[in-house]
Amino acid sequence: MHIHIINPNTTASMTQAIGQAAELYASPGTHISSSQPESGPVSIESHFDEVVSAVGVAEEVLKGEQQGGIDAYIVACFGDPGLLAARELTRAPVIGIAEAAFHLATLISTRFSIVTTLGRTGIIAEHLLEQYGFRHHCRRIRAAEIPVLDLEHHPDAAFTRIVEECCRAKDEDDIGAIVLGCGGMANLTQQISREVGIPVVEGVSAALKLAESLVGLGLHTSKHGDLAYPRPKPFTGKFAALSNLQLPLK
Amino acid sequence: MHIHIINPNTTASMTQAIGQAAELYASPGTHISSSQPESGPVSIESHFDEVVSAVGVAEEVLKGEQQGGIDAYIVACFGDPGLLAARELTRAPVIGIAEAAFHLATLISTRFSIVTTLGRTGIIAEHLLEQYGFRHHCRRIRAAEIPVLDLEHHPDAAFTRIVEECCRAKDEDDIGAIVLGCGGMANLTQQISREVGIPVVEGVSAALKLAESLVGLGLHTSKHGDLAYPRPKPFTGKFAALSNLQLPLK
Amino acid sequence: MHIHIINPNTTASMTQAIGQAAELYASPGTHISSSQPESGPVSIESHFDEVVSAVGVAEEVLKGEQQGGIDAYIVACFGDPGLLAARELTRAPVIGIAEAAFHLATLISTRFSIVTTLGRTGIIAEHLLEQYGFRHHCRRIRAAEIPVLDLEHHPDAAFTRIVEECCRAKDEDDIGAIVLGCGGMANLTQQISREVGIPVVEGVSAALKLAESLVGLGLHTSKHGDLAYPRPKPFTGKFAALSNLQLPLK
Amino acid sequence: MHIHIINPNTTASMTQAIGQAAELYASPGTHISSSQPESGPVSIESHFDEVVSAVGVAEEVLKGEQQGGIDAYIVACFGDPGLLAARELTRAPVIGIAEAAFHLATLISTRFSIVTTLGRTGIIAEHLLEQYGFRHHCRRIRAAEIPVLDLEHHPDAAFTRIVEECCRAKDEDDIGAIVLGCGGMANLTQQISREVGIPVVEGVSAALKLAESLVGLGLHTSKHGDLAYPRPKPFTGKFAALSNLQLPLK
Amino acid sequence: MHIHIINPNTTASMTQAIGQAAELYASPGTHISSSQPESGPVSIESHFDEVVSAVGVAEEVLKGEQQGGIDAYIVACFGDPGLLAARELTRAPVIGIAEAAFHLATLISTRFSIVTTLGRTGIIAEHLLEQYGFRHHCRRIRAAEIPVLDLEHHPDAAFTRIVEECCRAKDEDDIGAIVLGCGGMANLTQQISREVGIPVVEGVSAALKLAESLVGLGLHTSKHGDLAYPRPKPFTGKFAALSNLQLPLK
Amino acid sequence: MHIHIINPNTTASMTQAIGQAAELYASPGTHISSSQPESGPVSIESHFDEVVSAVGVAEEVLKGEQQGGIDAYIVACFGDPGLLAARELTRAPVIGIAEAAFHLATLISTRFSIVTTLGRTGIIAEHLLEQYGFRHHCRRIRAAEIPVLDLEHHPDAAFTRIVEECCRAKDEDDIGAIVLGCGGMANLTQQISREVGIPVVEGVSAALKLAESLVGLGLHTSKHGDLAYPRPKPFTGKFAALSNLQLPLK
Repeated sequence: MHIHIINPNTTASMTQAIGQAAELYASPGTHISSSQPESGPVSIESHFDEVVSAVGVAEEVLKGEQQGGIDAYIVACFGDPGLLAARELTRAPVIGIAEAAFHLATLISTRFSIVTTLGRTGIIAEHLLEQYGFRHHCRRIRAAEIPVLDLEHHPDAAFTRIVEECCRAKDEDDIGAIVLGCGGMANLTQQISREVGIPVVEGVSAALKLAESLVGLGLHTSKHGDLAYPRPKPFTGKFAALSNLQLPLK
Repeated sequence: MHIHIINPNTTASMTQAIGQAAELYASPGTHISSSQPESGPVSIESHFDEVVSAVGVAEEVLKGEQQGGIDAYIVACFGDPGLLAARELTRAPVIGIAEAAFHLATLISTRFSIVTTLGRTGIIAEHLLEQYGFRHHCRRIRAAEIPVLDLEHHPDAAFTRIVEECCRAKDEDDIGAIVLGCGGMANLTQQISREVGIPVVEGVSAALKLAESLVGLGLHTSKHGDLAYPRPKPFTGKFAALSNLQLPLK
Repeated sequence: MHIHIINPNTTASMTQAIGQAAELYASPGTHISSSQPESGPVSIESHFDEVVSAVGVAEEVLKGEQQGGIDAYIVACFGDPGLLAARELTRAPVIGIAEAAFHLATLISTRFSIVTTLGRTGIIAEHLLEQYGFRHHCRRIRAAEIPVLDLEHHPDAAFTRIVEECCRAKDEDDIGAIVLGCGGMANLTQQISREVGIPVVEGVSAALKLAESLVGLGLHTSKHGDLAYPRPKPFTGKFAALSNLQLPLK
Repeated sequence: MHIHIINPNTTASMTQAIGQAAELYASPGTHISSSQPESGPVSIESHFDEVVSAVGVAEEVLKGEQQGGIDAYIVACFGDPGLLAARELTRAPVIGIAEAAFHLATLISTRFSIVTTLGRTGIIAEHLLEQYGFRHHCRRIRAAEIPVLDLEHHPDAAFTRIVEECCRAKDEDDIGAIVLGCGGMANLTQQISREVGIPVVEGVSAALKLAESLVGLGLHTSKHGDLAYPRPKPFTGKFAALSNLQLPLK
Repeated sequence: MHIHIINPNTTASMTQAIGQAAELYASPGTHISSSQPESGPVSIESHFDEVVSAVGVAEEVLKGEQQGGIDAYIVACFGDPGLLAARELTRAPVIGIAEAAFHLATLISTRFSIVTTLGRTGIIAEHLLEQYGFRHHCRRIRAAEIPVLDLEHHPDAAFTRIVEECCRAKDEDDIGAIVLGCGGMANLTQQISREVGIPVVEGVSAALKLAESLVGLGLHTSKHGDLAYPRPKPFTGKFAALSNLQLPLK
Repeated sequence: MHIHIINPNTTASMTQAIGQAAELYASPGTHISSSQPESGPVSIESHFDEVVSAVGVAEEVLKGEQQGGIDAYIVACFGDPGLLAARELTRAPVIGIAEAAFHLATLISTRFSIVTTLGRTGIIAEHLLEQYGFRHHCRRIRAAEIPVLDLEHHPDAAFTRIVEECCRAKDEDDIGAIVLGCGGMANLTQQISREVGIPVVEGVSAALKLAESLVGLGLHTSKHGDLAYPRPKPFTGKFAALSNLQLPLK
């Protein structure tokens, strides 16, 4: 089984960290690859960053489809950028790390809180909770107020802030579990979990397992109805390469 | 990894069928066992049946905990009877087949319909959809109007009716996937899927994969807050054996 | 008119207290009886306790049906355990004390808070509020953090804690009324009400009045659709006595 | 116990019919009186009619308060016109017939349909269902498309149309009970119920019982918070008599 | 284009202030007139006040229709009293200032808070948010706890209190904009806005622009379905003048 | 006042048609300009098309900001692609045509239906309705099942199909108004409206009026909180030009 992780931002070191974090949880027989878009923002901290990164996600899926042999994709940014678009492009399952974390958190607790990086991204999580159906399962969205790349550049300070906010959530929010709200926290999960002492659900590993699950069940993204392959058509300018895609590729 | 499937009704042949259906999807290294309560209804087709079966579910979890070595439990009836109670009794993840099917269906489609056995159980599914957050992801709950045990006693006629209703759902409901609404359909999934031609999500296999996922991630049922072990206390009469449980059972 | 109150836990003294509390509010011509299951937990403070007690509730309804002459039933635990199952077993109305209190509270105020015993049972109330439609009418669920049986064993301390929490609700929650979240508080209602100074709705008395209302109107539990009598079928083991029920019992 | 029914329209014969229908269900010891506003529409079939009738409702409550001795009020039009205003004016409970019918219908069935007079009033019921929390308990709002006063002027034709629509609801809506959507149907309830063969909940009798319930429990409309007595102030023109009300009226 | 503003209370000085506030924002070519009911409360601070004022709103619309030449109406009280009734009476658009402010606030921010006069009117705003669909867009309803007419009688103190509460909202509520919750604040908007430093949306000016928008688009209130002209019928007593309205007038 | 309309697809003739449709409704003093992205799909009929077009929308806003003098932007595709991202990039109001049409439709009717092009885009509208709060105001989403560019290439057939579907909505959906679900229908609005005979709300003209409204009120997109300017950062590859944006530009 081959699962390909797309880091929607263009920071290769983060791609690597995410890939390594995923490797820790891969089942025997699961091959993990990872990539980031050639084009896009180095981190995703706004709707604007997200919109641009979503194109990169779609393009990485198309590369994967051209290359062939990929059984499932993971979109490894907590805003799940481009998720439904990615699903249209392939029969393979595509899992977002926010949705993955929400789903699994509801299986081990009745209510959870999210601890994310910057407060301004809270609205993105809110909209996802609404769309996915988990609005009432999430008690509160908390921000450590650290920029995403601080997870790489100032890991210790970032770790401290995240743990602080997780502990506050545990004490104040009447919850059973915490969802980590950033792909860049993937390699910190076990440490955070040890510090906080309640289940901490992280999206990359969660998405990996959901992807393995769907592939293992032979379930693919539905091509009946609104996730069918997009109609081929001309694209112009720097997106001309997307023109007249004959999907499924090959 | 040891996953134990509890068939909440007391029909051993159905336990066996469910167990076999699960085996088909088990990952290498996953050991599956299954059991049904000693006491309870032979099938679950009403709130009343469900209430009685929920005790059986709890007792089977306690047996599992006493025996030890079980990494996760599956509650294999589409009403998820006793699910939250079961979660209180163990640190191991416990997955219901209705929730499992709902979760996975939303990952491969935007909207699904349920095809269940008897129309009167539709309300149970409705309540679960509300509680889990999937009310708007489910377009319609359809019933083949066959008693649960007809799946064993008149499998061909039952199969025909289910496929008919699934096809109607595909044609009329503006959906991308179908959720099968009865554990007793587990061994029919692949056949139904072939006939219907869109993704068909069945709960037993879905739950198996979610259980493997949580165990693989080291995630356990939260013991912080409302799913903590129940306070030990006296139980009377035919439930006296449940008295003063010192959980976790060692 | 004969209304039978089922205390879902097995503490007979609590049954008695509940029955006496109800007597205070019975209309002339209303005969009240009460019972508790032979088998079950001495108090209900978890989903596990609730699941076991629900069987007791069903069995008490069946006893009532066999005996005959009962016009309505009350399920006197704030989680409304086994309520829909009980409704299936009889044409008589069956009222839960949580639902009863919620309904009446919305008739005399626009928003209410709940004051219950243990915080861990809050999730049960949340789920009921969702199912019944009152999520937005309840501002907050508060817990006095006292075990249910402390209401009997340490009544003064319990009373003090409950009143404290009610007063906090009055001052902080922007509400018009308080719902008491435990059947065991039934005999404290008037005292609490005097201390708190805003309407305090207690479920046992509320349910009594709703039961009288339905009986007075000649309204019975609908036997059309999803609350029809359960299909008769074999039950095994300690539930064998439930086998092949020919409902309605004559 | 004295319960006063306010027919919000000015058709005295309808007031009488409603009062008589209520008498049938009054408990021993309950005294029922009824009135209609001096000023207002002869029937209520639009938001406009409703707005005007709401003033009449408030004025009738004030008359009742001046007269004294009234323990509860009923607002006997299915749009519950002026309900919250009426509650502000008195410590006595005030019950609307739409809310009453909704509440009781949910106690004997899981889902109901409404059968009302004119389709254009459906939106009023929809808004009430939303505000009261019963949106998901009501499957469908059906209209017999008869003007309200046809219930008086062409009772047989009206009866036939209502029964037809009720039977359609029973057959098509997957419900357990029907709510009659007009106070003018109060005296037809038993006949309709016999024809339809499933529980039929009518608001006037339902409200009577809920009013008796609240009075019996000593529960009054909360005067803490948003239903407190209105601040006295000048009113001008034809409403000058409402000026500087010193509530509670003694 | 002629837009008529109805101040639902009878305080002429407030009508004037509202009219002047609106003038500031009128497009060239927009003629603004304003009036208040002859009969009604001097301010609206309760459901009771609102119910009475709603008749005045309807009557002012009827006057406008009789007079002719009015292209749109504005109902200038934050509870939007009589809004749907007013829409029934005319083909012209009718805009409430609460709805107007909510709509525009969601176009420039993702979440807003309301700052209103008296806390007791918060429930009115809550009900409107629910009905209009904006429940989740409003984080919090805050009250300055000043009577409406203090905006005229003690403008400086009122202004100070409002600004204080707005600043608290800005700092604590995780919002992008503030909605002013009273028509009487219309002439303070710009000052408040300067003090608070985030967008402040006021309903009178918002409604003016929405009215201009609809008129400019040639969109009228739908007369198909539930906002059709009311059926003519007799009205009695002080509302006799409303009898047998032949709408559209003239 | 200068309002700039961004047609998110790259079909210049559609940009022109949309611009002309808008001109019809522009207020005196409003200058309208329009553009389409240099890069992107020729029509938007899937999540994939939408994701790519959203970048184009953002880039067109940035061009507008660089150029200066634009008071508001309109995003003229019914999926509102990139709307929140666009709002982050400018202080000027940005209006999507789907949201605009929804908002105005609720001001002239209580319930509406949408008539869009392809059924597969219905899910996009559903998600927007949820996010904006209008789920319950929309009765049904209908598709004429015509590709977007057929509006240009086969205008007569497209027109016929759209009118047919609108008439069905009018007759079957219990609505007061219709929302046209595609920017490409902008120049057909008046004709459709005449054929259908109930209010037809089209998004381009609606957005124009909302944009004029906000500009007229001096209301700008909130820069406090989650729509603040994005943090400047490197972008790579074909998006390198987006690097280190110092917003506000100039």
